[in-house]
Amino acid sequence: MSAVIERLAELAQLGRHDAGIDRALATPQERRARERFATWARARGYALTQDDVGNLFARRNGVRDGARSILVGSHLDTVPTGGAYDGAYGVVAALCALEALDERNAATEHPVEAVAWAGEEGSRFPLGCLGSSVFTGAYDGASALALSDALGTTLGQALAASDGGLLDGVSKRDETRVAAYLELHVEQGPILEREGVSLGIVTAIAGQRRYRVAVEGTSGHAGTVPMARRGDALCAAAEMILAAERAALVAGESVATVGSLTVEPNATNVIPRRVTFSVDIRSPDDARIDAVETALRESAGDANARRRVTVAIERLEARAPTPMDPKLRAALGRAVAAIGERAIDVPSGAGHDAICLARIAPTAMLFVPSIGGRSHVAEEETSPHDLEIGVTALAASIVEVDKFVI
Amino acid sequence: MSAVIERLAELAQLGRHDAGIDRALATPQERRARERFATWARARGYALTQDDVGNLFARRNGVRDGARSILVGSHLDTVPTGGAYDGAYGVVAALCALEALDERNAATEHPVEAVAWAGEEGSRFPLGCLGSSVFTGAYDGASALALSDALGTTLGQALAASDGGLLDGVSKRDETRVAAYLELHVEQGPILEREGVSLGIVTAIAGQRRYRVAVEGTSGHAGTVPMARRGDALCAAAEMILAAERAALVAGESVATVGSLTVEPNATNVIPRRVTFSVDIRSPDDARIDAVETALRESAGDANARRRVTVAIERLEARAPTPMDPKLRAALGRAVAAIGERAIDVPSGAGHDAICLARIAPTAMLFVPSIGGRSHVAEEETSPHDLEIGVTALAASIVEVDKFVI
Repeated sequence: MSAVIERLAELAQLGRHDAGIDRALATPQERRARERFATWARARGYALTQDDVGNLFARRNGVRDGARSILVGSHLDTVPTGGAYDGAYGVVAALCALEALDERNAATEHPVEAVAWAGEEGSRFPLGCLGSSVFTGAYDGASALALSDALGTTLGQALAASDGGLLDGVSKRDETRVAAYLELHVEQGPILEREGVSLGIVTAIAGQRRYRVAVEGTSGHAGTVPMARRGDALCAAAEMILAAERAALVAGESVATVGSLTVEPNATNVIPRRVTFSVDIRSPDDARIDAVETALRESAGDANARRRVTVAIERLEARAPTPMDPKLRAALGRAVAAIGERAIDVPSGAGHDAICLARIAPTAMLFVPSIGGRSHVAEEETSPHDLEIGVTALAASIVEVDKFVI
Repeated sequence: MSAVIERLAELAQLGRHDAGIDRALATPQERRARERFATWARARGYALTQDDVGNLFARRNGVRDGARSILVGSHLDTVPTGGAYDGAYGVVAALCALEALDERNAATEHPVEAVAWAGEEGSRFPLGCLGSSVFTGAYDGASALALSDALGTTLGQALAASDGGLLDGVSKRDETRVAAYLELHVEQGPILEREGVSLGIVTAIAGQRRYRVAVEGTSGHAGTVPMARRGDALCAAAEMILAAERAALVAGESVATVGSLTVEPNATNVIPRRVTFSVDIRSPDDARIDAVETALRESAGDANARRRVTVAIERLEARAPTPMDPKLRAALGRAVAAIGERAIDVPSGAGHDAICLARIAPTAMLFVPSIGGRSHVAEEETSPHDLEIGVTALAASIVEVDKFVI
């Protein structure tokens, strides 16, 4: 069994429970995952550092004095019922790629650092891409350390409790040392599997807007209020759900999801008084997101006008699409060709640490297939064959990128 | 303040909480309501009995030997966030009507019994119209006593714990003693208020069918699964909700309600895997219920065919419409005229204990208006003026009915 398979199997034991893997940032199980990373890195003599929010770096030196680093990584934390590959694969593969360079005595101009970003999922502390946001200056470090989990423990307290004695030293955050960033990740969608290829080169990470919609109607007895006099909040919500779905289909290259919906009072014999639901719209193209949002708002206006309800739409988050660096994408294409593989261009519907890194350095991502397109579930899986091709492609990509980034 | 207003205000304190009144069958608060009823009945010398499932009877004697009883009543239990009038009004008004007969020394041929049926709402033990179902032989008494609430307490245990020492004696159930049944109730709908009348004579109690619909789709990441490849259980449910609404509007004189809906896993960034929802269809005309059910099943078939989902519809309950007795309706009409009031014919969209009684004896119902048509909510209200007219009309109805029933 190759190292990447073996190590992923080892990490998959950390935080495992009945319904998947729960390895939130700075928990004991996540600490054990860091310790595995540290052990593997030290065995190869890579210098191990951690910054004050818990980003962990294993550095393989380059030959050119003063050259900036190529960072390669992902994250070790999971959602509460996560799988074995989302994040962990990119971290383990980064280390394996460094080792592959060692094994063929391939010197690079730039230092190459395998990195485990702290807390990408945001499942314990309320900030997604926490470590990469702080590292890149998008979020203040002191504020991040002051974030509390559901039990009132701050990230600072949790890190102090879980990481004592682990590291060679705490490094100062220095985003200026980054020459380029590469991230290898499972696709989490069905495209590569459907196309029958082992590799995807990400064109852009989709922009995302999230909304909370509240529909206020009037409750009443399910048997006694005539249909024409109702203010049924659920019927109004149903129209909006279908309007958002239709708009995303019409706009193309976009997705709209109502994942969460709550009915009040939620009794079989009472007309729904209030329905709240989430809307999540994503596309690599902001104009398409605009189109879906417009359709959603038109549907709300229509419900306000035609039904006895009031609809309020609150925009919680708006993140523009993040295009990947064209030169890096081309380098990844050359690397894939060099190892005799084929890759297709794919968008990333999910968010990644690469979004933050793209703000400060040329950034690109490689995808390997997800079986059944499934992710964020216990059944998340990628074939061993594809996992190994991903590592090979990543090592080759480092070599290609090393040739021209400055 | 008249007795009916005063007593309703007193009962409204029993089980009151922030969001309404919670007075489920055989709870301490419901026991206190029975104690109030018993106290009021005993003060007038009415014989008080209770049968083994908790139906409570206060009997005013008639003058003819061996005559069967005219039963007049409703229920004292409420939904978890109920109001002060649904049920309680009919029980208190029945006692007040008996007292009105006393006050004018009006003898009746038949005994008249004010009755509080046990547990009409079905909000603690899973059986609506529990007491009247058992009394009329539609449901087995031993099975009813063995029904468990959510905490595993049986009705038998709950009655034993809450009613000790309350009553003069436990009566044998004897449905053959019923000559006729009258029930006065708040309309729980908007028709009387809209028409500006204080009284309604019920034509029929709507038939009702209840369904549980389960939509099984496929969950997935909200950002990565293309719209065309989704099996979104919530979008399929939304179509069915709107199909049911449309069908009831088209059928006319019918209502369809999706009051309860649950999404799994109900996370903003996960495509809904499973949605379950209730459907409640009612009409005084069974053919219209058929039409709405057919539309619901067609919509399910359509979702099965067009979407990547599987829809299962389970029919939980089907109750045919219950026409009220024509001779009793005519007698109620004469009674209303005799007191100088006006009544209109109205259907009852809600179910009542009268449905069960209609199986064994001539049965009729009177309605008073519900302000805003609201019921099963804390804001449920009927004007004091209408509450008093209802009592007067009920007393007059007893006199009219007493003249001809056998």
